[in-house]
Amino acid sequence: MGLDLTLNITKNASSVRHPILKVRGSDASDQQDQIAVEEPLEIRLGGMSLAVTMRTPGHDEELVAGFLFSEGAIASADDLDVVARYPGPDGERDSGNVINVLLRGDVTAARKLLRRNFIAASSCGVCGKSTIDDIAQSLPPVASDLVAPVSLFGRIARAMNEAQPIFDKTGGLHAAGLFDAEGRLVILREDIGRHNAVDKVIGHMVRARRMSLDRHLLMVSGRASFEIMQKALKARIPVVAAVSAPSSMAVQMALASNMTLVGFLREGGFNVYAGTHRVVSDAANGPDHSPRRV
Amino acid sequence: MGLDLTLNITKNASSVRHPILKVRGSDASDQQDQIAVEEPLEIRLGGMSLAVTMRTPGHDEELVAGFLFSEGAIASADDLDVVARYPGPDGERDSGNVINVLLRGDVTAARKLLRRNFIAASSCGVCGKSTIDDIAQSLPPVASDLVAPVSLFGRIARAMNEAQPIFDKTGGLHAAGLFDAEGRLVILREDIGRHNAVDKVIGHMVRARRMSLDRHLLMVSGRASFEIMQKALKARIPVVAAVSAPSSMAVQMALASNMTLVGFLREGGFNVYAGTHRVVSDAANGPDHSPRRV
Repeated sequence: MGLDLTLNITKNASSVRHPILKVRGSDASDQQDQIAVEEPLEIRLGGMSLAVTMRTPGHDEELVAGFLFSEGAIASADDLDVVARYPGPDGERDSGNVINVLLRGDVTAARKLLRRNFIAASSCGVCGKSTIDDIAQSLPPVASDLVAPVSLFGRIARAMNEAQPIFDKTGGLHAAGLFDAEGRLVILREDIGRHNAVDKVIGHMVRARRMSLDRHLLMVSGRASFEIMQKALKARIPVVAAVSAPSSMAVQMALASNMTLVGFLREGGFNVYAGTHRVVSDAANGPDHSPRRV
Repeated sequence: MGLDLTLNITKNASSVRHPILKVRGSDASDQQDQIAVEEPLEIRLGGMSLAVTMRTPGHDEELVAGFLFSEGAIASADDLDVVARYPGPDGERDSGNVINVLLRGDVTAARKLLRRNFIAASSCGVCGKSTIDDIAQSLPPVASDLVAPVSLFGRIARAMNEAQPIFDKTGGLHAAGLFDAEGRLVILREDIGRHNAVDKVIGHMVRARRMSLDRHLLMVSGRASFEIMQKALKARIPVVAAVSAPSSMAVQMALASNMTLVGFLREGGFNVYAGTHRVVSDAANGPDHSPRRV
């Protein structure tokens, strides 16, 4: 049966040491490796189970706040009353993996909304005839006069690399970073799930009551999917940049919502899939000081 | 509002052309790019909605069969009666994104089981005290005398690279490949979701009535998560290899289930995180022809 590795994971640790056999060519050696921690988190609303997500422990309260905001169950930190770890019976090993939320105001309404969202998902709210039109209608397009010079993208790519401590060790975590219009890193979070990393970033801003994000950029490691764009749109973030490729629905959503979507962002360059009007040349400010499209 | 890209996606296409702005250094040029298609698939059981997954169109019947097998709703192809695209009303654009399933035998029992699985997930079946123990009990460890020489892993890594046509174009798709004990590729599937690619591979084998997989290897692009290991274990596949890092729960599950888990599999080498007893040296067969652990 082998070793029960559970016992070796420090509470709330993001990574754990584990012995591996390292094979290079025909040589093999016993070594120690760092592995990204993946554990389930159960979110309860007023004591009743709402959702379970596989996540990397740490910043769980932000994850919950970001999740509830993305789902439309809360509009601001004012709607959150208590976000608390479930104490659980003595000796329950995974009690740290349950978070209970109390909302101010009408919990029944929030629960109904969440249930409607889940039912909408499971009865395929996005399968219908007018997929993207519907989504664009339910969330209006972003309105933002942010312009981003080409050099800004190189700067945020470098800042992400430098600020990703766990990824360097495990190679197993996704990161999401929020940047201001000058390319300064506001907050970075890592998680085994890309959508969780984004929820943690947005949840951090919700809790900090700093949700004026219409002049900010969101950068994610890996790919840009429909889900990531939906979360960014909900938070009114006009620019999303991904290290890897976007999906077709991510591009469609960006086009329909006046968002700028950048893919394959590496230090040497990037591709713009939607919203090119926001990407301007660095040598742009002419005599009239207006930015010039690259 | 930009272009509605939906209209340009050929039915069942895995990728779509899209104009991009390509920025390299301070140069920018208009180019055409290939983007991986992401669309929702609704799975209905006896006409009633069961689940929705974001997937890349193609091999949808395999995806559905693999999903139902992984969830325990079917034990073999014999339990499947009809897997058919929902015709939908005339002119419904996304009718290709709904699949209806009819089961032989007791549909009510299957629906109850699926509902129990979903409820178990949403009331955190994996949050409990004895997470890994429970999982290992509900699915017994794999029994397999398969041994894999070091060189076999290099061969399957090369075979995956060569057989991944869409990934080469878009950089946006995950792949899952099933290999036999000699390293021959049995089936490879690509999808925007790693778990969908695995469902398609397993669904293909379910439909082909070739579910004796205890001498096979599953290789996945990207990372190995808990979910991937659970699907492999359900299909009784003893060896899982990933191009990137495994998560802690993937390692725990492999240790508890007598599975071999290989990570960071590249052409030059790999790491073994669990089940090292199956990995043997190539120059191994001594006078007694018994394999020797590396």
